[in-house]
Amino acid sequence: MSEERIFEIVRQVLAKITPTSSERERISLIVKKVIDSLHEVKKDYGIDYSIEIVGSYAKDTWLSGEADVDIFILFPPDIPEDSLGYYGLMIARQAVERIGGKCFERYATHPYIEAEVSGLTVDIVPAFKVASPDKIISPVDRTPFHTRYVISRINEKLKSEIRVLKRFMKGIGVYGAEIKVQGFSGYLAELLVIYYGSFYEVLKNASKWTPRRVFIDIEHFYKEREKKKLLRIMPGAMVVIDPIDKNRNVASALSIQKMCEFIAASREFLKTPSLDFFFPPKQFIAKENVSSLLEKRGTDIVVVLTKIPKLAEDIIWGQIYKSLDGLERLIKRFDFKVLSKGAWLSEENDLFFLFELENAELPTIEKHYGPPVTSKNVDSFLEKYLGSPDTISGPYIENDRWIVFRKRKYSTVSDLLKDRFHEARLGKHVLESLSKKMEILQGAEILKYLDKKGFKEYLYNWLIKKPHWLRHEKAKFE
Amino acid sequence: MSEERIFEIVRQVLAKITPTSSERERISLIVKKVIDSLHEVKKDYGIDYSIEIVGSYAKDTWLSGEADVDIFILFPPDIPEDSLGYYGLMIARQAVERIGGKCFERYATHPYIEAEVSGLTVDIVPAFKVASPDKIISPVDRTPFHTRYVISRINEKLKSEIRVLKRFMKGIGVYGAEIKVQGFSGYLAELLVIYYGSFYEVLKNASKWTPRRVFIDIEHFYKEREKKKLLRIMPGAMVVIDPIDKNRNVASALSIQKMCEFIAASREFLKTPSLDFFFPPKQFIAKENVSSLLEKRGTDIVVVLTKIPKLAEDIIWGQIYKSLDGLERLIKRFDFKVLSKGAWLSEENDLFFLFELENAELPTIEKHYGPPVTSKNVDSFLEKYLGSPDTISGPYIENDRWIVFRKRKYSTVSDLLKDRFHEARLGKHVLESLSKKMEILQGAEILKYLDKKGFKEYLYNWLIKKPHWLRHEKAKFE
Repeated sequence: MSEERIFEIVRQVLAKITPTSSERERISLIVKKVIDSLHEVKKDYGIDYSIEIVGSYAKDTWLSGEADVDIFILFPPDIPEDSLGYYGLMIARQAVERIGGKCFERYATHPYIEAEVSGLTVDIVPAFKVASPDKIISPVDRTPFHTRYVISRINEKLKSEIRVLKRFMKGIGVYGAEIKVQGFSGYLAELLVIYYGSFYEVLKNASKWTPRRVFIDIEHFYKEREKKKLLRIMPGAMVVIDPIDKNRNVASALSIQKMCEFIAASREFLKTPSLDFFFPPKQFIAKENVSSLLEKRGTDIVVVLTKIPKLAEDIIWGQIYKSLDGLERLIKRFDFKVLSKGAWLSEENDLFFLFELENAELPTIEKHYGPPVTSKNVDSFLEKYLGSPDTISGPYIENDRWIVFRKRKYSTVSDLLKDRFHEARLGKHVLESLSKKMEILQGAEILKYLDKKGFKEYLYNWLIKKPHWLRHEKAKFE
Repeated sequence: MSEERIFEIVRQVLAKITPTSSERERISLIVKKVIDSLHEVKKDYGIDYSIEIVGSYAKDTWLSGEADVDIFILFPPDIPEDSLGYYGLMIARQAVERIGGKCFERYATHPYIEAEVSGLTVDIVPAFKVASPDKIISPVDRTPFHTRYVISRINEKLKSEIRVLKRFMKGIGVYGAEIKVQGFSGYLAELLVIYYGSFYEVLKNASKWTPRRVFIDIEHFYKEREKKKLLRIMPGAMVVIDPIDKNRNVASALSIQKMCEFIAASREFLKTPSLDFFFPPKQFIAKENVSSLLEKRGTDIVVVLTKIPKLAEDIIWGQIYKSLDGLERLIKRFDFKVLSKGAWLSEENDLFFLFELENAELPTIEKHYGPPVTSKNVDSFLEKYLGSPDTISGPYIENDRWIVFRKRKYSTVSDLLKDRFHEARLGKHVLESLSKKMEILQGAEILKYLDKKGFKEYLYNWLIKKPHWLRHEKAKFE
């Protein structure tokens, strides 16, 4: 029976992802060292901050091997907002260096320190200590409340269910609320388990979800009749009202794409459960796999290549996706048929925009629809095309309109992109980068970049397109 | 001034198209001979028919060199309808042969004799003599009433205006209500002159026409408020209420295409008057003109060739246009982009369907949109495409839908047409003909048929597309 099989798999997953006591011990010692050091440096400053562990480590919902420790330095709210980062980073840096750790300054919606202490990564984040969620100054101030809420609602059983769900979401690639992914945040995964009661129940329900129709309000802030309106006005593919802030949708960053991938994977998993959903099989891809895929394709692959400056992840990916859409729209506007698109960023910030086209070359002629014969604009249309060197046939009348066959402005995508990329809606830094350096690769030309770390795998999967969790299915039907 | 120029041109046209007295005399002698002979044979039959000249000859609105004599044999209405043709044709044949003429049996909506007597073509048509238009038995019975109505409404001046308008319509290719043309009938041209008062006024008004918006009711049968409804329900690109039958639209056979060509040519003529509108310059087209047009085209020409049995013109062209639309729809359904289409029939009834395509070959891959991830049909979609040899990429999720890249069913138009022509909506005889013999020609292959009389000219103009009356414009702008 499939339900038995699911529980068996869940047990196997738990065996792999539940932190062991030795792992817990090792980490808790390091965390204690960091916290002690943060308290220690307090006397050098005249500020009475407190220290709080938040996030999955605090909630004990983290996965073995992926400990992700977040420590907040909570300042009194009378500190000016713009000095928060200054003090916070200084204190963190001093505390980390005192115990021999290394610091990297990071920036998300707020500045923070990513510290490496005895092989463990610890994020140290300055925030304001506020009395209740409605007193929040910066968005990160909400995190301690989220942590406390989840802790108050879960037990050992639910912690395991949360771990399994997170592993499932990671396995199918929908975990993470950052712009690059636009998937489910850890907090959202936790709330789903709290609401539905278990991993299995989350999947059973998700397999019946419809995007923009799911409304979850754990704390019953709203009446039934208010749902519809909130679904309409709140951003995000579904609405999960934040139990500590009724005006916030915890799923606001979730895209339709990722919600649908989760729905589809849930359905598939319930139908044919497998450990592969949680742990994607390692792919060993040879260059020849990619080149043979490209060869027998019958479509045209066009890649726009540039180099983009180092920026915060969310900023860079916001610009990449915006630019990818913008370039696609430009290409479509000139009649090329885009079958699919993608973007890949190397470790050295080489940015690849990939397009698969029905044809990268179009006939030199295009049929251009002019005004109706009854229009005021007929004279100027005829004046423009009669005797123009770009006119190939006509002008002539088809039904009620003037038509002309004219020379196409761009019969190759590559000419179009070179000439007009600046007309596309692009991210600021992408526009600057393309203006400085733009290379256009077609078909097999792309193969020379296969040595860039991770590109072979990206390209292979982008061409294959089938999600890994469907690949095991193949055998079944063949 | 342009008005002066127009009147000057009208005078030149009239000088060419007004029948001379010697031409009139010659024809009237022949017509008299035919009529006398028709009366003469009456005594061989026990039927008391009368003879009436109808049509443009009777109205004196015919053009020099194009006399088109219609003689009706009007039978009493008590003759059975199905014997009308039998008696009529027999009487006509006997009368024509008595005076040494030749007979050809023809069939339109009714059977008739096309006679050739002393070099003149005379159509002899059997019909019923009815007391008023509402007593009509066969549609041709209406013709004598049309003739009498027009005669009662025109004078010498209007006859000239009608001749000029007819010549203009013939010159630009919109004259004739037969299915092949779907243009303006002679009667419609006459009514337009009667209504607007002159050739010039017809053109001035026509240049402001909009298809499906023009309502002309010379005899004021209808009230203002009834117009809208009649425009909606009466077939035809415009409505001209028949002065002798308020339920009939004289323009019911007029297509939007031909109405618009007339509108556009009217506008052009008023702007830049020229004799060319009335008398298209003779084209001397060499084979090389056609082949060089084809070569530098950049599109693909595909021609479907068959041979069709001899049938009445209206029947054959009804089937040709229906089949042309049907084949176009079939081609479009399989993703090929049709830029334009045409049909040509040789004197030996070789039928050519011509298509100009953006590409006669498409990539082997097509992107196929499957069900939304939330659909009941997902399972059968996945089952169909997972591991199918036609699946090239995916299935994968794009936004909220399952997608697959699959092998295209037909990547050439020619394979598609050979395999599926019978699925297209075709005329009965066209389907039979194609089933017996179908040849598909591509690009330059068509050149081997250039020797068929008239095909060179058809093909050249079909490729050029610009109406001849716009070609003189070219010089102006170059």
